[in-house]
Parts: sequence; C-alpha cells; structure tokens
Amino acid sequence: MPDIIGVIGGGQLARMMIPPAVALGLDLQVLAETDESSARLAAVRVGDYRDADTVSSFADTVDVVTFDHEHVPQPILRNLMARGVAVHPHPEALLYAQDKILMRQKLSKLGLPVPEWARVSSPEQLADFLSAHGGRGVLKTARGGYDGKGVRMVTDAAEASDWFAALAEDGNGGELLVEERVDFRRELAQLIARRPSGESATWAVVETVQKNGVCAEVLAPAPGSEGRLAETAAEIATRVADGLGVTGVLAVEMFETTDERILINELAMRPHNSGHWTIEGSVTSQFEQHLRAVSDLPLGATDLRSPYTVMINVLGGPSAGTMEDLYPEVLGQYPSAKVHSYGKQPRPGRKVGHVTVTGDTLDETAYLARAAASLFDR
Amino acid sequence: MPDIIGVIGGGQLARMMIPPAVALGLDLQVLAETDESSARLAAVRVGDYRDADTVSSFADTVDVVTFDHEHVPQPILRNLMARGVAVHPHPEALLYAQDKILMRQKLSKLGLPVPEWARVSSPEQLADFLSAHGGRGVLKTARGGYDGKGVRMVTDAAEASDWFAALAEDGNGGELLVEERVDFRRELAQLIARRPSGESATWAVVETVQKNGVCAEVLAPAPGSEGRLAETAAEIATRVADGLGVTGVLAVEMFETTDERILINELAMRPHNSGHWTIEGSVTSQFEQHLRAVSDLPLGATDLRSPYTVMINVLGGPSAGTMEDLYPEVLGQYPSAKVHSYGKQPRPGRKVGHVTVTGDTLDETAYLARAAASLFDR
Repeated sequence: MPDIIGVIGGGQLARMMIPPAVALGLDLQVLAETDESSARLAAVRVGDYRDADTVSSFADTVDVVTFDHEHVPQPILRNLMARGVAVHPHPEALLYAQDKILMRQKLSKLGLPVPEWARVSSPEQLADFLSAHGGRGVLKTARGGYDGKGVRMVTDAAEASDWFAALAEDGNGGELLVEERVDFRRELAQLIARRPSGESATWAVVETVQKNGVCAEVLAPAPGSEGRLAETAAEIATRVADGLGVTGVLAVEMFETTDERILINELAMRPHNSGHWTIEGSVTSQFEQHLRAVSDLPLGATDLRSPYTVMINVLGGPSAGTMEDLYPEVLGQYPSAKVHSYGKQPRPGRKVGHVTVTGDTLDETAYLARAAASLFDR
Repeated sequence: MPDIIGVIGGGQLARMMIPPAVALGLDLQVLAETDESSARLAAVRVGDYRDADTVSSFADTVDVVTFDHEHVPQPILRNLMARGVAVHPHPEALLYAQDKILMRQKLSKLGLPVPEWARVSSPEQLADFLSAHGGRGVLKTARGGYDGKGVRMVTDAAEASDWFAALAEDGNGGELLVEERVDFRRELAQLIARRPSGESATWAVVETVQKNGVCAEVLAPAPGSEGRLAETAAEIATRVADGLGVTGVLAVEMFETTDERILINELAMRPHNSGHWTIEGSVTSQFEQHLRAVSDLPLGATDLRSPYTVMINVLGGPSAGTMEDLYPEVLGQYPSAKVHSYGKQPRPGRKVGHVTVTGDTLDETAYLARAAASLFDR
C-alpha cells in the first residue's frame, strides 16, 4: 500500500479527497496551482503542473501520483512512468480523456456505441459531414475543452471558420472532431472505479441535467433506470474501463437517445461532478473509492444509502458574497440539506459548491435540494 | 458566523472535525500537544493547553474556541472569557464535566435522576456510605478520570486507603465521590447539541458496551428504545444541556437499571465516542453538529440514515502494526465496513480507530461490524 498519495491539481476534486483520506488515515499531498487553492489544506507544494521539473520533484516525494484534472502534458507523465513512478490513471489511458479524436477512435475500435463522428481539417470536410447528417453537427476541439468550452453546435461550415483559422495557425496539422447531433431524451452518467489489479465497481447510473454546458443537477439513480438500462450503462462503463486500462475513477457521460439507444458522449478519468452525490448517497463515495483504487486497495461497496439522492451545483452569482455568508438562512431553512463549499472566491458562473439531499421519494428529494441550492443563487 | 474555529487539543475528536469543516468550508485550526497529533492536518500550533500564554495567543488568532477534551484549566478559560473570547462550551458549563462532585450536586439540584451519592473525605465516611448501600459502592476521583481511570469498585473502605492518602498529600482538603453501585441492565448514551441561542437537537439514544472501562461498541438506536425510553433519554439530555448551559455537543452516559429507571452516569461536553456512529448513521454527524453549534449556526437534521448502525472501537494490539497495514485484508473481506483510523502510533489498549457498519437488521449489522473490527485485533 502506498504511504503517500500525491494529487496533481488543487481544485475541488482534490479537496473532496481530503475527508476520506482523513477517515482512512491515508496521507494525501497535493501539488496546487496557487496558495489559495480549493485543496489548500492538503497542499504541500505550489507550482505549475506543466513544468516537468515541478512535477518530477513533487512525484519524488510521494508513492503514487493521481489527478484533480486531466491537463498534465503527456511528455511529463511518460517521463514519470519511465522513472518508475506509479501513476494512476496511466498516461496511455489518460490520453483518451485528453484527446477527443483519439477517444472516438478507440471507442469505435472497441465496438462501443458512440455518435457518428469524423475528423475534419477543413470547412469543406465539415460541410460534407453536415450534409450527410441532416445539416447539423456538434463540433469539438480535440483538446482543452471542458464545461461546454471547446464545443459548438453548427449548421454551416462557415460558423467554424475561426476554429479552422486557429488550427492553420497552430501549424501542426490539427483536426477538429465533428459528431452527429444526437436526438436525446436525457443525459446519463455512469461512474466506475477500477484497480490496477483489474477489480472494478460501478455505482448506480444517474441522470445529469446541464445548463449552459455546465452540470446543474444529478438525480441518482436515474429515474426508471432499474433493470436493463442500469445493466447496459454498467456494462458500457466496464468495457471502457477495461478496454482503455483506466485506473481510479472513470465517469462515462452518455446520451439516452429518443430511440432508446445509449451513446457515449464524454469520458473523465477522475472523480467527476456527476458523482458528488455518492458522498452521502453511496456506502463508498467516489472520492474514497478513487483513493482506494489508485492505492490498489480493495474497493468499497457502492450500494445506495437512500432510495434517491439529488445533487445541485452552486455557481457564483452576481453578488460577491460567499456561500458561508448565507449559512444562517440556508441551514436554518433546510436542516436536511448537506452543503458543500469548495472554499473558492465566488465569480459569476464558477462552481463554488454543491448541495445534496437524500430521501425516499424523488419528488420531495429534488424539491428540497433545488430549494436549498437556490437560496445560494444571488 | 465565526471565520476561524479554534480547537484546543489534537486528538481523534479534533481530527474527526476536519471532514465536516472541509465540507462546509469552515476554517478549523487546532492547538495540538505534539507534532504528531491525530489532528495534525489542521494543527496550526503545538503547545501545552495548561499554559496560559500558549492558550491566550492561540485564542487571539481564532474567532471561537472549542475543545477536543475537557482538561483545560478553569483559570485559563475564565481569563479567555474575561478578554471577550467566545468559548464553547462556556467554562461555567465545562466545570461540571471537569469535576464529578460539582456535576452530581448540580444534577441533584436540578432534580435529574442520578445514583445515590456522597462526598467523602475519610475512610470512615466511605465506610458509612457503604454500610448504608449494601456494602458496596463506586468510588471516583472528582477530577482527572477517563476511560475507567479514576474509578474503582469498592466493598471496604480499606481498598481506598491509597486514594485518601493522596488526598491528604494534596493539602487542599479534597474529597472523593462515592456512588451506589447500580444494578443496571445496560448502559445508554444520549447525545445532544445545543447552540448559544438555545436551539438544541438530540440523536437517537444508543446502547454502549464497555470492556475494561473503555467503550467497546455502540448500537444505534439502542435496541427496543422506540417510544418511552427514547423520549425519556432525550428529555433528560435536554434538561442537562439547558440546566447547565452547555453549548456544542454534550454526551449523557446513563444506566438503564434492572428496575427500569434511567440514571445519569457521566457527562462529556464535546463529541464523544458514543456518537462516532453518527458519521454514517445520521443525516448530520456529531462532528458537523458540534462545528455548527459552537459557530451558532442552525443545527442539522439528526434523522437516522439506516435502521441500524453499529460502531466498534479498534484498540492497539500486541503487534506494532498499524490499521493501514491490514487494509488489503479487512477492506477486501468487508467492503461495506467504514473504517476510521486516527493516525496514531498503536500501543496496546490505545484507541486507534473504529469501524462502522449500517444496515437493515441489528443482527447482521452488528455481526459485520464486529467481524471487520476483529481483524484489526492483532
């Protein structure tokens, strides 16, 4: 068992690894971007994760390296591997979360269900794809997108002329990914954790609701998902985790189409916003499970703690106030709400926390979670 | 709302306040006894809590002071109060957890149910009490006892000659407390949290099982406690908290006598071993509730998360191994067990962690918790 788990990145995902590390007595040490990072309590070093020396010297002081985000450059990670550092997920798996074209290629090769897609390097190629797919598509940059950034709905190749111009300037022959615009009934997410030794465990499949490209709420389990849907989602996630050799937590974001197919949308190889509900909603949270998995410890049970769990994100509002300023009101009105603050300076639209409520009926649970979270929205 | 919550003492109780502080975004700062304290992650200072200057300078840097233990001397606490520092619980309440004779006097005055008791300062007075109570009694030092220390079963005054000799040497006219030896069916504990503004919230009454004077296991709720017993226990705890002006978490340890009376045994004014089950077993844990209460924030819901929760303490065994050494085996065999390590060097008999299991039936829940915990016992 590793003595020290090193996390690159000091965001809220690293922050939420702290409680289970404290409970299990695991030593968690974070390489943070700034002194005021969300995970500052566990930060032992502040530095740039894009700097090879910074990452190497951090890795020298820990027994296993894992991540708060997927942005550490491949050459830096491969250098760590070459030096014998335990890195989870492995760089060769993480690559598929970093590059959406490689991800689509790999999933297609594995025979996993994905939207129709193509790589395009010119407006003409994009126009061809659009005309073959009802005149519309979803255009994505292969790298660097998150929370709706780097994603654009297009109906005409001219709408993407700026991106193609930027690709040309890059001078490295880059390509964009275009996908069919899927008619979906709703979005789902399936979380799974996998150990280096291969053991894996899935949680209940959940429904995710996005607003402006950002996750707004998660309903766990996804309403009506018992039986076939739950099995299909878990099987897909297991095939992805095994096929790509993922270690740690993997989130598979999926579309449930209007014609009842499941298509894989995005992958995230780390604890994920769609799994925050597991802190209260599951016997083992995604954060505890990630620590177990990257330490190659046996995984914990993922049974539901309640029939329903609903998680609502809290975004920074127009005022400069913090969530904590509103505790007297929110905690007083909603004593059953579990409030999580990420200790961040609020900025409009920035994820600053979330609220989770557990309960016996979906309607009441969702009502209470939304009502409590909405009080922070000012 | 206070910006910084200062905790005096760096034991496991302070350690277990860290996860809810991280979740709620509260700044928790600990004055620890040693560099290697259980709560070292939140320790901002190492020093002696019996030193007035150390405690004062620590208090100057925080907004409210609370405790991991009840051992801070009264003059130091009263000095803080005189300087306008917010201290919870107040020194005048804490006094009753520090001095068992004062506690018995106060509870008797409030008309609360306690065993028959007397203050004795000589073997003759003890002999008189024993002969009036069937020839047996429980002798306690007024101060300094915990986990069975400072408590002795006596049937003859001669058995206490060393304690009386020590009292005489103290030269301050000290007294011992003697109580009737209660015929009890079982021991119960009732936790309550109370805000400075007076709001209070109780959890389910629990059964505690002691071995060698140390809490060994907790069954929540106490089997068969629905209805009258639960109401009686909650009412007693509320009268104690209100009557003594306790703020923060209060644990009331009680006997359920063979003739079905409830008698108050001990008080603890801080999160308590009998409440560790609330981390998984209640919507709001005792540690989160303590932070809310001492910050005068609204209290959280205390509903059960499962029909039954069983907590088993893990004590250091004869080997020098840590709990973490045994994780591959224990976590593998008991995936539903929630394991808590206090990050302490194991010594035989020292509390080094605990295991909690939640479930639908008491038999299965207790079986799993005991089985998982017993694997650490080596």
